[in-house]
Amino acid sequence: MNQQMEIICIGNELLIGKTLNTNASWLAKRSTTFGIMVKRITVVGDDVDEIVSVVREALKRKPNFIITTGGLGPTFDDKTLEGIAKALNRKVKVNEKALKMVREKYENYVKEGKMERVELTPARIKMARLPERADPLPNPVGTAPGVIIDVGGTFLIALPGVPAEMEAIFDESVAPLLKKEAVELTFFETSMYADGIMESTLAPLIDKTMHDNPHVYIKSHPKGEERKPHIEIHFSTTAKNSEIARGRLGKAMVQLSELVQENHGKIRFKRKK
Amino acid sequence: MNQQMEIICIGNELLIGKTLNTNASWLAKRSTTFGIMVKRITVVGDDVDEIVSVVREALKRKPNFIITTGGLGPTFDDKTLEGIAKALNRKVKVNEKALKMVREKYENYVKEGKMERVELTPARIKMARLPERADPLPNPVGTAPGVIIDVGGTFLIALPGVPAEMEAIFDESVAPLLKKEAVELTFFETSMYADGIMESTLAPLIDKTMHDNPHVYIKSHPKGEERKPHIEIHFSTTAKNSEIARGRLGKAMVQLSELVQENHGKIRFKRKK
Repeated sequence: MNQQMEIICIGNELLIGKTLNTNASWLAKRSTTFGIMVKRITVVGDDVDEIVSVVREALKRKPNFIITTGGLGPTFDDKTLEGIAKALNRKVKVNEKALKMVREKYENYVKEGKMERVELTPARIKMARLPERADPLPNPVGTAPGVIIDVGGTFLIALPGVPAEMEAIFDESVAPLLKKEAVELTFFETSMYADGIMESTLAPLIDKTMHDNPHVYIKSHPKGEERKPHIEIHFSTTAKNSEIARGRLGKAMVQLSELVQENHGKIRFKRKK
Repeated sequence: MNQQMEIICIGNELLIGKTLNTNASWLAKRSTTFGIMVKRITVVGDDVDEIVSVVREALKRKPNFIITTGGLGPTFDDKTLEGIAKALNRKVKVNEKALKMVREKYENYVKEGKMERVELTPARIKMARLPERADPLPNPVGTAPGVIIDVGGTFLIALPGVPAEMEAIFDESVAPLLKKEAVELTFFETSMYADGIMESTLAPLIDKTMHDNPHVYIKSHPKGEERKPHIEIHFSTTAKNSEIARGRLGKAMVQLSELVQENHGKIRFKRKK
């Protein structure tokens, strides 16, 4: 079975619809390509009690990985580490490795002439205050380190909300871990497009094709307007290598294409402009 | 206190990062402008057990509204209504009002020459199979009706995943209900931008401004690169009318602008290109 992941995104800006949650889809896409199955994405606000609840609920479901985004910065409303610590009944303390990372960042800012001298204010030290028995992950492009905690079988990983920082820490420190832990299975996907056939006519044809191709998952996504049905048909499978995957996906695509054409639909392999 | 809402988005395409969750942010933004507080957004896959869990968990938290998106169509993997029914311990049955809506849609398709005759196949009747004691909501642009269920204090509303259909049903049937139920409070927001000041320097200035302006929520969002700090500062408040809101937001903006300038930062009111 594939390793499982939950993603928790923290930030009021997501709950008021100010910010589109591109972090969740970026993490989901990258993790899926490593053969990890993302089971749930949850968004909560900058509120310690909400963070405690959502982290505890996720831990109860025992995924292999929980990744949080947001709430690691220096401001009062960056509450993720306080929430995670409380969820684990641990204290928050200045972590010496993290403090060294933060201090070196400010020393570089001084060298670059962005600051006159290093001053570790409470807001800056806050970024090095981690739950007990947590490890910092270096932030190659920003100041606040990421955080990783091994919670008996679940890796709980906290990343910043700024997309460039989140992505850089993921690529440098999280991706190697996922690759190491993930079973040797990779996710493959492709799409074709059907014109001139309604989704309700397509439905039983997909059923039949999936029945005959048990390792392939097929899902229709209507894209056109009501008057001109244009449906994306998405095929996916998880396999050991691309040859097996291509064989499976190809067989299912050929079968479904034939069924669609028998029902007077047209198949194309590119999305209509 | 504001009315509370949870949003549940159903679809494997969201969990593999194929589709960006624009539905969640659209719903969150629209509902927030009606003075509703969105407390949580959850994404799960096309899996009945997952849907049952997430609906039951949300109901336990007793929000005033739960809106689901996705999984109402004719295909095998449209499992939302089955999951909602199971979560409520109700059966799924053909709803006569919903069946009438679906039949009329296909009658129109025949009139428009898109089909030869109305044929209510199992896949099409499926869209009229609702949990017991549920009501259908007309779909002005697609086939599958939305669904509303009054679960003792929580309105549970299921909308399709196709954005145009979701938005049309929301505007026609859900928005009037939210406006009726919502307290007479509206959400107001505005942003300004700070240059040449680091977020860690800004943090205590925001703390002070929020302390002096208890009804205003202020959050910083770093936008620039590391070398050139450019920070969006977002101000929001919930108020009875725009005059009160403008007064509050203006006072907080003036105070924080002064503090930023004392710390050698620059304020601008438009985002830097």
